[in-house]
Amino acid sequence: MTEVTVIGLGEMGAALAAAFLDGGHAVTVWNRTPEKADPLVAKGARRADDVRGAVAASELVVVSVKGNDSALALLESADLDGRTVLNMTDGTSAEARRVAAEVTARGAAYLHGQIMTIAPGVGHPDAVVFFGGRAEVYERHAPVLALLGGRGTLVSDDPGVPTLYGMAVHGTMWGTLNGFLHAAALLTDAGLEVERFLEHADASMSALVSFLPSLAQEVDRGEYAVPFGALQHHLPSVEDLVRESGDRGVDTEFPTSTLDLVRRAVAEGHATDSYSRLVEHFRGR
Amino acid sequence: MTEVTVIGLGEMGAALAAAFLDGGHAVTVWNRTPEKADPLVAKGARRADDVRGAVAASELVVVSVKGNDSALALLESADLDGRTVLNMTDGTSAEARRVAAEVTARGAAYLHGQIMTIAPGVGHPDAVVFFGGRAEVYERHAPVLALLGGRGTLVSDDPGVPTLYGMAVHGTMWGTLNGFLHAAALLTDAGLEVERFLEHADASMSALVSFLPSLAQEVDRGEYAVPFGALQHHLPSVEDLVRESGDRGVDTEFPTSTLDLVRRAVAEGHATDSYSRLVEHFRGR
Repeated sequence: MTEVTVIGLGEMGAALAAAFLDGGHAVTVWNRTPEKADPLVAKGARRADDVRGAVAASELVVVSVKGNDSALALLESADLDGRTVLNMTDGTSAEARRVAAEVTARGAAYLHGQIMTIAPGVGHPDAVVFFGGRAEVYERHAPVLALLGGRGTLVSDDPGVPTLYGMAVHGTMWGTLNGFLHAAALLTDAGLEVERFLEHADASMSALVSFLPSLAQEVDRGEYAVPFGALQHHLPSVEDLVRESGDRGVDTEFPTSTLDLVRRAVAEGHATDSYSRLVEHFRGR
Repeated sequence: MTEVTVIGLGEMGAALAAAFLDGGHAVTVWNRTPEKADPLVAKGARRADDVRGAVAASELVVVSVKGNDSALALLESADLDGRTVLNMTDGTSAEARRVAAEVTARGAAYLHGQIMTIAPGVGHPDAVVFFGGRAEVYERHAPVLALLGGRGTLVSDDPGVPTLYGMAVHGTMWGTLNGFLHAAALLTDAGLEVERFLEHADASMSALVSFLPSLAQEVDRGEYAVPFGALQHHLPSVEDLVRESGDRGVDTEFPTSTLDLVRRAVAEGHATDSYSRLVEHFRGR
């Protein structure tokens, strides 16, 4: 009987298994292509012949595969009674809840885990992991789970929440990256180095995320009126960005999508509201 | 003879004039609607009757009006010889250069200033101001300019650069805010508080801007290959975000625009490149 089983040895699954091994735990691994287990077996992992055997080997069963349909299909053959399934497979929150429902109906405890780093960051003290599930299940496995990242937290008893939190971080990240890369296109078109810009703008760029708590509060309260920095103040600056992009032959579609949002909100009477009022556009109702 | 003249007393111009007054300088002000000057006159500013008189009153002339066409039109009547014009009017980089060219042709020195705060932040030790112009002009006025914000820097001798830097910060900011507010729509649709999400995700959100220097380096070097976190790894996560949004009736247009960018780059053979490769899309060529 080993302590942890890892099913799925893609880049992430292999990193998870390695972190458990590095933490001194006995680890059983399974992957559809068995050779993927070779480096882990060389480090001391036990290779299971099939998923049924892999699940039988440990009480804690970590699943990291491509899609929750695969996760469910793989677990079909296994006896889950008395096991804890930690599902770290990407997908939607509804999928996470569906796996949780099926797994718990078959006698297992369920945790969902959303890790917020690329594979080489697994196990790092700064690595963030959002867990969802029952507190006593999380507490029972907390010392093992802590090996995956120094900043692991149980965020909800709802197994769908880690997925939503992960999407919220990633969605903000893609927004940031798209905005930054559009800016990089403008700067480099003008012959400016992006690295030099960042040196000069470090304080401004670092401050960007500091605005988010006040926006979060506005959204949570549904109160958007602000004395300064309202949508009417953003409007001319977004117009300038669209004009500058057009002047340079840099993409105008991206800043124009922002301009359309701000213009619409102003036209609907929200000129003196915070930028956070745009959440109502994204709600799509 | 006063020390600083401020032309244009909108929210920002009035804040600039107040900062100079608070710093102990003699200040002359002018605004098209003269009553806007009343609170500053009450604090000790001198009101000029016209722009010509306002410009004649001080060597340093700060202009903060709506649009660079207005700035040029207002300065037409004035004798600029021997003056330093600090233009803090918003617009494009080409407009800033046009004002610089005209003003210097009339015997004045030119500085462009892009302030990265809302009016109540003017003069704060953390307030960032990007200045563009000749170093000796900047140095001559540095003690007065420092009153506008503790983080003022001369970023270039090209008067168009502060504007571009400002746009790059703002463009990144709008990207961040749009991504975050779309996420907020998802979270609140699921009954989750955005403030609570931010508490849990603080480390992840703070890390977002920490990725930017490596992306900047990739863009500056034109070298996009990365061993981890490549576009092929982003793709399924963006797909999940689009599906989750669709499941919830939350806007899918915004995440789909990201999905389209990533899919196109992958289809063009950039699957193992960094996200920074998307700069080439924004270059629009």
